[in-house]
Amino acid sequence: MTAKKRKSLLITFEGIDGCGKSTQAFLAYQFLHTNGYKVKILREPGSTVTAEKIRELLLNKKIKMTPITELLLYEAARTEIVANEIAPALTKGIIVLCDRFYDSTTAYQGYGRKLDLRMVNTLHKIATKGIVPDLTYVFDVDLKTASSRQKGKKDRLESQPRAFFNRVRLGFLEIARKERGRVKIIDARQPLDIVFNDVKKILLKKINR
Amino acid sequence: MTAKKRKSLLITFEGIDGCGKSTQAFLAYQFLHTNGYKVKILREPGSTVTAEKIRELLLNKKIKMTPITELLLYEAARTEIVANEIAPALTKGIIVLCDRFYDSTTAYQGYGRKLDLRMVNTLHKIATKGIVPDLTYVFDVDLKTASSRQKGKKDRLESQPRAFFNRVRLGFLEIARKERGRVKIIDARQPLDIVFNDVKKILLKKINR
Repeated sequence: MTAKKRKSLLITFEGIDGCGKSTQAFLAYQFLHTNGYKVKILREPGSTVTAEKIRELLLNKKIKMTPITELLLYEAARTEIVANEIAPALTKGIIVLCDRFYDSTTAYQGYGRKLDLRMVNTLHKIATKGIVPDLTYVFDVDLKTASSRQKGKKDRLESQPRAFFNRVRLGFLEIARKERGRVKIIDARQPLDIVFNDVKKILLKKINR
Repeated sequence: MTAKKRKSLLITFEGIDGCGKSTQAFLAYQFLHTNGYKVKILREPGSTVTAEKIRELLLNKKIKMTPITELLLYEAARTEIVANEIAPALTKGIIVLCDRFYDSTTAYQGYGRKLDLRMVNTLHKIATKGIVPDLTYVFDVDLKTASSRQKGKKDRLESQPRAFFNRVRLGFLEIARKERGRVKIIDARQPLDIVFNDVKKILLKKINR
């Protein structure tokens, strides 16, 4: 067995659909893995059997639901991923990279759907049992660029009107403004290698601290 | 069109599995319907397309989940039934009979699973938007009698150990003790016609008030 570098960190990748966060999460995963870190990549909602079942409901355009139902289902899926994947990995000294986490719910359901932010935060605490990411990237991009990067059919959330996504984008920026220490905004209009340079710089600083 | 008696009431039927609440809810429905009331019968979790999808997850024994996930899914299903069925019916002057409502979650997830009761109550308020039943029956029965009434395969919740159901039963009694005005305990070991006499007496008092 090769020696593995152990470090417990939860790093989340956030932004509107088409911002490139999944690609950047994967590049970060490869980078950490290649450099000998124990690292795990997850996506939200999903990553456990039960959470993927909940994801199916959430992303099915034919299933109508109230914004609060949607919020509760995201938090239910989150409870599963935190209890079964994130918390156990962190106790084992693994770096966990998560493609979306609770900031997405704040941005989409809080700012986008205009649900009460205190209620949204209460639910985050219930689902995460107080786990807060050590580092969160917000990949900021204009709606036109984001839209041009998305191919194929849109799911239930992605088929929302433009004003909704604008509120979500501004929501992410507001989250970053409120928590400057944790949340870093990345200019995601840049080519992906340049974006990843920005990601890597912040990542190395965090890891070597 | 025949004249219908209009009255807005939310009446819930609670108790452990096998207590006879579904039968009693149906008898109450028939009684009110026959007597010219506008009345609707619902069951929880379920009664809307989305809530029935959530119900499938909740009652599937093969799907493992944490107690908090379970709680959040019940509340998500509840949000749907309240928004799409209960609240609209109450504004139209309909008597709504509901086979289980939030007291079941308090009893099963709060007392049974030992989740924090304040957290459980916070979620009830989010899901119901503050709607409280006008009348709640708790059909109390010993575990042996309840068990002998249940036939066929048990679902995920029903396959819990005996101590769990004992906590749930005591939970229902505790709820009744805390809210004497709203919650009425019915001795459900009696034959069903005698039980229904008890139900009817309380029902008539409520309706004619």
